Amino acid sequence: MGKYTLLKKEGSARRGRFETVHGTIETPVFMNVGTLAAIKGAVSSMDLKEIRCQVELSNTYHLHLRPGDDVVKELGGLHKFMNWDRPILTDSGGFQVFSLAGMRKIKEEGVYFSSHIDGRKIFMGPEESMQIQSNLASTIAMAFDECIPNPSTREYVIGSVARTTRWLERCKTEVDRLNSLETTINRNQMLFGINQGGVYNDIRIEHAKRIVDMDLDGYAIGGLAVGETHEEMYDVIENVTPHLPHDKPIYLMGVGLPSNILEAVDRGVDFFDCVLPARNGRHGHVFTKNGKINLFNKKFELDGAPIDEGCDCPACRNYSRAYIRHLFKAKEMLAMRLCVLHNLYFYNKLMEEIRAALDGGYFKQYKKQKLEEWNGRA
Amino acid sequence: MGKYTLLKKEGSARRGRFETVHGTIETPVFMNVGTLAAIKGAVSSMDLKEIRCQVELSNTYHLHLRPGDDVVKELGGLHKFMNWDRPILTDSGGFQVFSLAGMRKIKEEGVYFSSHIDGRKIFMGPEESMQIQSNLASTIAMAFDECIPNPSTREYVIGSVARTTRWLERCKTEVDRLNSLETTINRNQMLFGINQGGVYNDIRIEHAKRIVDMDLDGYAIGGLAVGETHEEMYDVIENVTPHLPHDKPIYLMGVGLPSNILEAVDRGVDFFDCVLPARNGRHGHVFTKNGKINLFNKKFELDGAPIDEGCDCPACRNYSRAYIRHLFKAKEMLAMRLCVLHNLYFYNKLMEEIRAALDGGYFKQYKKQKLEEWNGRA
Ligand SMILES: [Zn+2]
Ligand SMILES: [Zn+2]
Repeated sequence: MGKYTLLKKEGSARRGRFETVHGTIETPVFMNVGTLAAIKGAVSSMDLKEIRCQVELSNTYHLHLRPGDDVVKELGGLHKFMNWDRPILTDSGGFQVFSLAGMRKIKEEGVYFSSHIDGRKIFMGPEESMQIQSNLASTIAMAFDECIPNPSTREYVIGSVARTTRWLERCKTEVDRLNSLETTINRNQMLFGINQGGVYNDIRIEHAKRIVDMDLDGYAIGGLAVGETHEEMYDVIENVTPHLPHDKPIYLMGVGLPSNILEAVDRGVDFFDCVLPARNGRHGHVFTKNGKINLFNKKFELDGAPIDEGCDCPACRNYSRAYIRHLFKAKEMLAMRLCVLHNLYFYNKLMEEIRAALDGGYFKQYKKQKLEEWNGRA
Repeated sequence: MGKYTLLKKEGSARRGRFETVHGTIETPVFMNVGTLAAIKGAVSSMDLKEIRCQVELSNTYHLHLRPGDDVVKELGGLHKFMNWDRPILTDSGGFQVFSLAGMRKIKEEGVYFSSHIDGRKIFMGPEESMQIQSNLASTIAMAFDECIPNPSTREYVIGSVARTTRWLERCKTEVDRLNSLETTINRNQMLFGINQGGVYNDIRIEHAKRIVDMDLDGYAIGGLAVGETHEEMYDVIENVTPHLPHDKPIYLMGVGLPSNILEAVDRGVDFFDCVLPARNGRHGHVFTKNGKINLFNKKFELDGAPIDEGCDCPACRNYSRAYIRHLFKAKEMLAMRLCVLHNLYFYNKLMEEIRAALDGGYFKQYKKQKLEEWNGRA
């Protein structure tokens, strides 16, 4: 139900376009994370438009607990709920169940766990995850998978990946069923499969082949950025992407630093998401063309320059480092908002530049120059 | 240095216009409080423009402690610091010294106290307050006075008011001196005197006469909304305003509820300020045309309507009660921001309606209707 068009290639790097019922996504793209249907740091969906966000990402697990996906459905789905008319991707809850929830028990049918809010016992399997995401009515639903801890033994990974594959079959069947119902808000909801396999390339590749056979709307590489080195991560991406379809988008989940994004684009990735820019922003750590800086630093006390000279974001157009530093010291929430706006804009703008570089056929050169400018600081 | 023009009168209520070096203020006006050069709730000066704020109010005491008025001066004054080009009023620090600071000792020369942040010993007298406000470079500086606790004995009030009068003389001399300096950022800074006297009308009136003789740019009624009843407050206003000049603005400090504002306008007040709308907003208490509501209430869980039907503010134009309630329950900062925006807009819009009613000669009728609609709930 989504149509991916490969516009141009430079090495393995891809410039593409993904058409959805909620509008076109120019790729490579960085999705802006609004876990609970809001970007942390008092950033509204109106702000998201101003900072050129293309895709908003929300969380199945969190929204199931609060306010409840039934509430969101009753209110017309996530788009209406948070007043955002562009594409939304919902993750499946898998990652959160395995990273946040307590007292986890994995069975063939799904996962039994306790809510991290009130300890309430909850069951989530592939069908439940798809039902929640259908209630949320996102543009793209993610498959329910097990996010394997790193390190894990080869034996454990093999068993887990096999189960994730069986779960994916069930996800697909359930999404098809839900999309066929008249009461479903977004009957064109797409499903992306998720490749797993830890850092074992052969398992990853075998799994990729299996899920490609299912002909899904897109493919994600999951279970990375969980403690392995950057080199291990790049190696997995390099090994897996050749086995994913050329006419479907590829999404690297939960990654990462600007430098990680450049490297992953260079290896064929189209979609990204990460909480890092918003989280850094809330702590006064902001990205600039010369690397990351910490606005709590005393040296910015009298600095009348914007966070990043030449940046066009709402924070840099209007406020100085000195003012934002003051707001942090005075514990004014506005400090967080301005830095989150800047950091997300920095990422969204980076993706625009990457796309322009791919369009112009100078991506390799752009990447080299950026990595030098940031000098390992971003 | 400010020019007040009385455009129209209805009973004692005044429709006016106050011209300043930072632009014209249409009165009656409600000033939006940004204590530390920022509105609490992640509201930016850009947001302030969108919610039709005319005058921003910041605090001498707070900014002296953090980031320091010397820092603000170095950065070009408050207007540049917070990127706000319209009028700014700074209070004198008097109220905060008497309500927040610890270990207070009042002497003829001024007040010795401890910072509420780190306990550091500080001295502030009329000259110091004027110097700080000159560094901040606000449009209007407020006189340094003693905010008398309620209740206080007649004897104490008489002594305190006499000292406040002596301090006012010193404030005026110091402002004149500071405005004459080439290094002063706003050499047209105005000074408003503050009437004190507790709930003793005869002391208030006597004091009013004394300070009117000093021919200041405007006059405030201070020391109200500190525990006395609404009736006592209205009685003081009614008694004092006839003794203040007709060609100068009258400012009722720290008041209050929408109903208080209507009553005070009816008694001749032009300027208002209060932390109440922002503080209420941060707790999910929002003003509507039918009185105040609490968005934490379960009954709003599925309520797809805006906070206040027909309200044109950024929150009501874009988000539902159900969404904002969810944000509060999920502890998302955006909840506070949206409610602060709505409440401040509610106040700013109320003042616009009051001005229109005065222009149209139907203020009495408007006041009656509003008080009935709110039904004692606002
Ligand atoms: Zn910026
Ligand atoms: Zn509103």
